Amino acid sequence: MALAQLQPVERNESGIETVLGILKQRLGEKFQTGQAVREQHAHTTSYIPVQAPDGVAFAETVEDVQDVVRICAEHRVPVIAFGTGTSLEGHVNAPGGGISLDLSRMDRVLSVNGDDLDCTVEPGVTREALNAHLRDTGLFFPIDPGANASLGGMAATRASGTNAVRYGTMRENVIALTAVMADGRLVKTANRARKSSAGYDLTRLLVGSEGTLGIITSLTLKLQGIPPAISGGVCPFPSVEAACQAVIMTIQMGVPVARIELINGIGMRSINAYSKLSYPEGPCLFLEFHGTEAGVKEQAETFGDVAAEFGGGPFHWTEVAEERAKLWKARHDAYWAGLGLRPGAKAITTDVCVPISRLAECIVETEADIAEAGLIAPIVGHVGDGNFHVMILVDTESAAEIEAAEAFVARLNMRAISMDGTCTGEHGIGQGKMAFLDIEAGAGLAYMRAIKQALDPKGILNPGKLMGAGRALD
Amino acid sequence: MALAQLQPVERNESGIETVLGILKQRLGEKFQTGQAVREQHAHTTSYIPVQAPDGVAFAETVEDVQDVVRICAEHRVPVIAFGTGTSLEGHVNAPGGGISLDLSRMDRVLSVNGDDLDCTVEPGVTREALNAHLRDTGLFFPIDPGANASLGGMAATRASGTNAVRYGTMRENVIALTAVMADGRLVKTANRARKSSAGYDLTRLLVGSEGTLGIITSLTLKLQGIPPAISGGVCPFPSVEAACQAVIMTIQMGVPVARIELINGIGMRSINAYSKLSYPEGPCLFLEFHGTEAGVKEQAETFGDVAAEFGGGPFHWTEVAEERAKLWKARHDAYWAGLGLRPGAKAITTDVCVPISRLAECIVETEADIAEAGLIAPIVGHVGDGNFHVMILVDTESAAEIEAAEAFVARLNMRAISMDGTCTGEHGIGQGKMAFLDIEAGAGLAYMRAIKQALDPKGILNPGKLMGAGRALD
Repeated sequence: MALAQLQPVERNESGIETVLGILKQRLGEKFQTGQAVREQHAHTTSYIPVQAPDGVAFAETVEDVQDVVRICAEHRVPVIAFGTGTSLEGHVNAPGGGISLDLSRMDRVLSVNGDDLDCTVEPGVTREALNAHLRDTGLFFPIDPGANASLGGMAATRASGTNAVRYGTMRENVIALTAVMADGRLVKTANRARKSSAGYDLTRLLVGSEGTLGIITSLTLKLQGIPPAISGGVCPFPSVEAACQAVIMTIQMGVPVARIELINGIGMRSINAYSKLSYPEGPCLFLEFHGTEAGVKEQAETFGDVAAEFGGGPFHWTEVAEERAKLWKARHDAYWAGLGLRPGAKAITTDVCVPISRLAECIVETEADIAEAGLIAPIVGHVGDGNFHVMILVDTESAAEIEAAEAFVARLNMRAISMDGTCTGEHGIGQGKMAFLDIEAGAGLAYMRAIKQALDPKGILNPGKLMGAGRALD
Repeated sequence: MALAQLQPVERNESGIETVLGILKQRLGEKFQTGQAVREQHAHTTSYIPVQAPDGVAFAETVEDVQDVVRICAEHRVPVIAFGTGTSLEGHVNAPGGGISLDLSRMDRVLSVNGDDLDCTVEPGVTREALNAHLRDTGLFFPIDPGANASLGGMAATRASGTNAVRYGTMRENVIALTAVMADGRLVKTANRARKSSAGYDLTRLLVGSEGTLGIITSLTLKLQGIPPAISGGVCPFPSVEAACQAVIMTIQMGVPVARIELINGIGMRSINAYSKLSYPEGPCLFLEFHGTEAGVKEQAETFGDVAAEFGGGPFHWTEVAEERAKLWKARHDAYWAGLGLRPGAKAITTDVCVPISRLAECIVETEADIAEAGLIAPIVGHVGDGNFHVMILVDTESAAEIEAAEAFVARLNMRAISMDGTCTGEHGIGQGKMAFLDIEAGAGLAYMRAIKQALDPKGILNPGKLMGAGRALD
């Protein structure tokens, strides 16, 4: 994306200078201003150009977070929360400079409550670290966005991934948060009760707010019991439509599928080449079932019958852990496999989500669009939710290619919105999708802005992201 | 509750007079000011005294809602949304007078999308009407708060009920809303995609906002496929602790129980007497399982084993529809059965929700408290969520009894909050629980107030409810 299209944020030079001095003194080694560390903190696994912050504060305690926010608030300097830097839409860039608040050192699991199937963690705990911590408890945290992201960052972007179809997204799996608000006060959004009708849902307001309303300092998360049995497999289909019809019927029949992922033809070719496999090279569904031994058998058989009804199959499935691991490694390596389709190219990854009844139409139109635009761009999708990703392989040195990719992304976003869907199912808005949020949210945007204005009147929290500047209410 | 404890809201006499004149002219027959209709619209299935509005507007279209809100906004007159009047904490009272906006005539099912398992309805559609409409589709809407409430009202109070343990609450089941905001503008909070990371979660902000942020004019709701098989039964336990332990283990094992309801000893006595049944008169769990034929059998057997481990049982279960219907009728009649424990008395019904690990302790302490206070008060609970209700039977003519009941409710709420729970799992705050929200939300209350102030700066939407007046941010 041309930098000119990004929301400009004015630099408060004197405020920044003052804050750099104060933080250096206050935080010592926990505050760094070297160019490498600053640039690394604006690196976003994306094609959006790096806009480095002026300094990086490594918070180790809630008090550190409060200090940084209060000092920045006093001097009107931006604060950009940073977890692992795996977001995809420029979320951690610093368009007006300011302080990157790195939370990766706040990485303690504070409590695990087995009876309540919940845990409380600091924001820098990654999902893999949490699952490693839980290893002997019989419990796991299901949400898997691919990257080993921090849980604070996952909440901030309302992340999900392959098994949201069964377990929900961060929206459904965060029970409560604590957060430092723009004025430096610490807020606890809820207690640990599984449900509550007590007041406005501050938890859900902060989940997905991309660091623009508060800095998450702890999360209470739902956990799941590890299912006694897991089965999985890969099923080829004659067309994307047939695969989508099978998905719809499977879900309608109430099969509690844990994962149901679509990879299109070119995606399957890349996976075979990368992982030295020999799957059919047309549209395939990757599936996983969780339950009792009898349950997963029944689920797999039911799905096999459904697939056959739409011309799919044969559906080979297995309960053998090693074989399942191989299958999901191939799926998770889709990104690297995709890069192999055009050595030397980089990927622009984008995501949309539509009602599942429109999914086949949306993917088919998108495949035609890709062909017409002369792009190389495999598609993988969390199709149980109607969510899919397109990975566009571009030479980022070529302005023409970037332009063509951006134009394609714009058409894809508009297509999804016009099909009653959303411009992002799980990546968030950041800098990359602000123009589409504008269109999608319509009149709602003014109320989002009013909330932002009310909770962060100085506009210090991650400015130039999500909805940027503009008018709130009249 | 003594009226003096309720949040006072100043009457804007001249504004009200003006609005009455305008609405009479504008709405004709759709605007009524008779005393009976006004009082009926402040009736709240509760012991909280009626505070009638000055007029009742029966909206038939979104434009009617916008008209009423705009006119009331212009003259700073309260607007109180009304669905079926089944809320329990004084939500529809008009402490500062104003206009009750009755949405019951907006009762059309606008669309049912079978492939997407969703539907869009007007706010006045009741849950029973929706399920009647869905009868031939193989789909159903699961959320069942007991009363045949309107879906708009259920969203506004973040309602749930017996099967939230399996299907979630209104928080999880509303995909999108349209709402008329305090300035009269119509907002659509989201499109129909199952998940989205696009901006602040306005849907979840409105769900549970009790008519204080906007008037819901349509809802897009998740639907479920009717399971191929349903089984259910009743299981006695030697103690509340044993029953709760069995619930915890059942859920930990991943049994996807659809309903798991506790009724305590006195509750079971009342049910036997009322419904002429002969269940054991100690703590019992009522259960329901949804799934395939094999699945529900397996679930029921697993639960039976778990129950036996904690000294419970025998667990008699059945797939026969008539027997299940009888069982759930008895459970749903618990309110009327409870009234039978003290003929002539009225019920003060309250609800709290705690982490499930604290549930037994909370109920046992509450039973001791009831005994010590000399109250008659059966307990029924949606124990899979840690949520339970106490129904206190009082002579509402006796100030001393009301006072004793209120003191008990206060202790119960504080007990739940001190156990990391909430002062209301599903009834909402309304007027009755404002004091407890204050304590529970702590620092968060100022941010709720800031949001209220930002979205309803004139304070016309349901004033004197939820968090009432007070300071927002400094």
